[in-house]
Amino acid sequence: MANDGHSRDPSGAGKAGVKPGGRGRVTLQIIADRLEVSTATVSLALRESPLVADGTRLRVQQIAREMGYSYNRSAASLRTDRTNILGVGFHDITNPYFAELLAAIEETAAAHGRSILLGTYAENLQRQDRVLTTLKEYRPDGMIICPAGGTTAETLQHLMAAQVPLVQLSREIPGIGLDFVGSDDRHGTVLAVEHLIGLGHTRIAFLGESPLISTGRNRYRGYCETLAKHGLPLDPTIVYSAYGTRENGLKGVQKVLDAANPPTAAICFNDLTAFGAMLGLRHRGLEAGADFSIIGCDDVQEASQWYPALTTVKNFQDEMGRKTAEMLLRRIADPAAPPQRAVLTPELVVRGTTAPPKATR
Amino acid sequence: MANDGHSRDPSGAGKAGVKPGGRGRVTLQIIADRLEVSTATVSLALRESPLVADGTRLRVQQIAREMGYSYNRSAASLRTDRTNILGVGFHDITNPYFAELLAAIEETAAAHGRSILLGTYAENLQRQDRVLTTLKEYRPDGMIICPAGGTTAETLQHLMAAQVPLVQLSREIPGIGLDFVGSDDRHGTVLAVEHLIGLGHTRIAFLGESPLISTGRNRYRGYCETLAKHGLPLDPTIVYSAYGTRENGLKGVQKVLDAANPPTAAICFNDLTAFGAMLGLRHRGLEAGADFSIIGCDDVQEASQWYPALTTVKNFQDEMGRKTAEMLLRRIADPAAPPQRAVLTPELVVRGTTAPPKATR
Repeated sequence: MANDGHSRDPSGAGKAGVKPGGRGRVTLQIIADRLEVSTATVSLALRESPLVADGTRLRVQQIAREMGYSYNRSAASLRTDRTNILGVGFHDITNPYFAELLAAIEETAAAHGRSILLGTYAENLQRQDRVLTTLKEYRPDGMIICPAGGTTAETLQHLMAAQVPLVQLSREIPGIGLDFVGSDDRHGTVLAVEHLIGLGHTRIAFLGESPLISTGRNRYRGYCETLAKHGLPLDPTIVYSAYGTRENGLKGVQKVLDAANPPTAAICFNDLTAFGAMLGLRHRGLEAGADFSIIGCDDVQEASQWYPALTTVKNFQDEMGRKTAEMLLRRIADPAAPPQRAVLTPELVVRGTTAPPKATR
Repeated sequence: MANDGHSRDPSGAGKAGVKPGGRGRVTLQIIADRLEVSTATVSLALRESPLVADGTRLRVQQIAREMGYSYNRSAASLRTDRTNILGVGFHDITNPYFAELLAAIEETAAAHGRSILLGTYAENLQRQDRVLTTLKEYRPDGMIICPAGGTTAETLQHLMAAQVPLVQLSREIPGIGLDFVGSDDRHGTVLAVEHLIGLGHTRIAFLGESPLISTGRNRYRGYCETLAKHGLPLDPTIVYSAYGTRENGLKGVQKVLDAANPPTAAICFNDLTAFGAMLGLRHRGLEAGADFSIIGCDDVQEASQWYPALTTVKNFQDEMGRKTAEMLLRRIADPAAPPQRAVLTPELVVRGTTAPPKATR
């Protein structure tokens, strides 16, 4: 019988060191013996073939379920060249931005009969290489990755050489020519800085400048360009360079408050940085909104529930995650199609952490 | 040649409708042709066999990497009866408690050469059944599940019949006899209620009573028992029955504040419920810690960063996730061992949301 994707002992009589059928698996043969039919009949019945009489089909299916029979995707994937697995590589899923993206990806994948194989690698290129190599070995039909800081086209060469359908999410590697779903990060920061300038701020810090990731570069560019447009100087003593974490927000806001000419407001790389910065303000006896203005980026669930609620740039994680999974499914269906890009337009959500500077009130 | 786990076209010349080798895969044959050696030599070289001369081995490995050759785990798993996949089924990963558990599981799994296949199902039994069935079809070496509310031994019968090594995380199905890692939830709530009574509270609400999950039953039991121990009545008008979500905390606290004899404090099922409750207090012009005491459960990262910071029961997600992955690996290695249980002892972390009741100050 051909390799048909159903549970069976591939070695026939079993090999040395491997229990025949493994872990007591129910094979087609066992079901066939029990019902006194051929394995071919069992296989056809389990595949809902009209060649098998209704009564037989139902009996086979009932017995198979009772005995804990399970379709074998490993065998099936050799036959169909599809695993129905989508690999997802993120640097951090405890950042709610990525947890929210992952939830949307998983939900969309499940609706299309795909499952998610997950790997994480912090911002560590060596770990990313190991994790992506491992994910690749499971032969996912495609992969979604948010590359670690410093990733280059060369870093991902082994995936591209293996022709794994690939979509970059949120962060984009320059010149790599791969599909991408993300946000217009520069535009988001422009909205944020314009809002602060409109309130009267002229000393605006940037917390979480991170040149190794496209989101970092684009958000910082939006900041620099908007300051320049309004004739405001770019002052490196109120720019804090670090990845966007709670801890870096907490440290960063205190660092810029110690500048010779301290800021009255801060643009934060993301919401996590903003939450940390709000905490850092409290360490100095200051309150966001009342004493100092803070703007985040992403609009994770937590943002609307802080006190005061966080003014932030909404990045639509639900839509972004869904679009990413859908783009990957299109890419899998048509590997030769030209590169696809979906760039969502972020929106500013004004809440309680922004106000005119204290001196002007 | 035997099925050796390396990349090859299992059908030989290719089948109708399936491109030979799929997605332009590099096969042993292609590498062998390129180097003018046998496929057996290529296979041995890729497995670091000492039977192949060093120079040949290195050349094969270099060419294989350049050409994007990848080890095929689908084929390998048929041979070894191991996929090195661990399935993880959770109801919600946007709850940071589960995101933190998942991160710890993934990290531990990766350290042991395993990858995580993820499925989520809200609190929906039908969806859980579909998701777990799909995960099972990938033949994970084992699975970690936090069962949806209302799950019974019968619900999981198909996994148990298939003898999938299984560890229950956080929530436990009564009488099912499966491995379990979780927290002593009753004890955690006892600590919380004792703390409030020690501060002078006698009207203590419970937000998030949820009898369909073991964590819900055990936490509520700790509440009832501690009230009884101190001779305090159990008042259903200040018990809010619902799953532990931000929204239910927000609604719940307002519901109990409307009771004829309102509470001065609330035990919340988890931190999310507590965050929602703190928000609900603000809707009424009240502040946690100053006007009303709130205790959460889990101690997610966000808890220490609220203002005021949340008094909560610490559940040690890092350790719990790590122990769960390790327990599953032991179970996979020894399917016949007796059921294992690891119940962590939670600790109360007193922060800013608890204080004596206002009237007594």
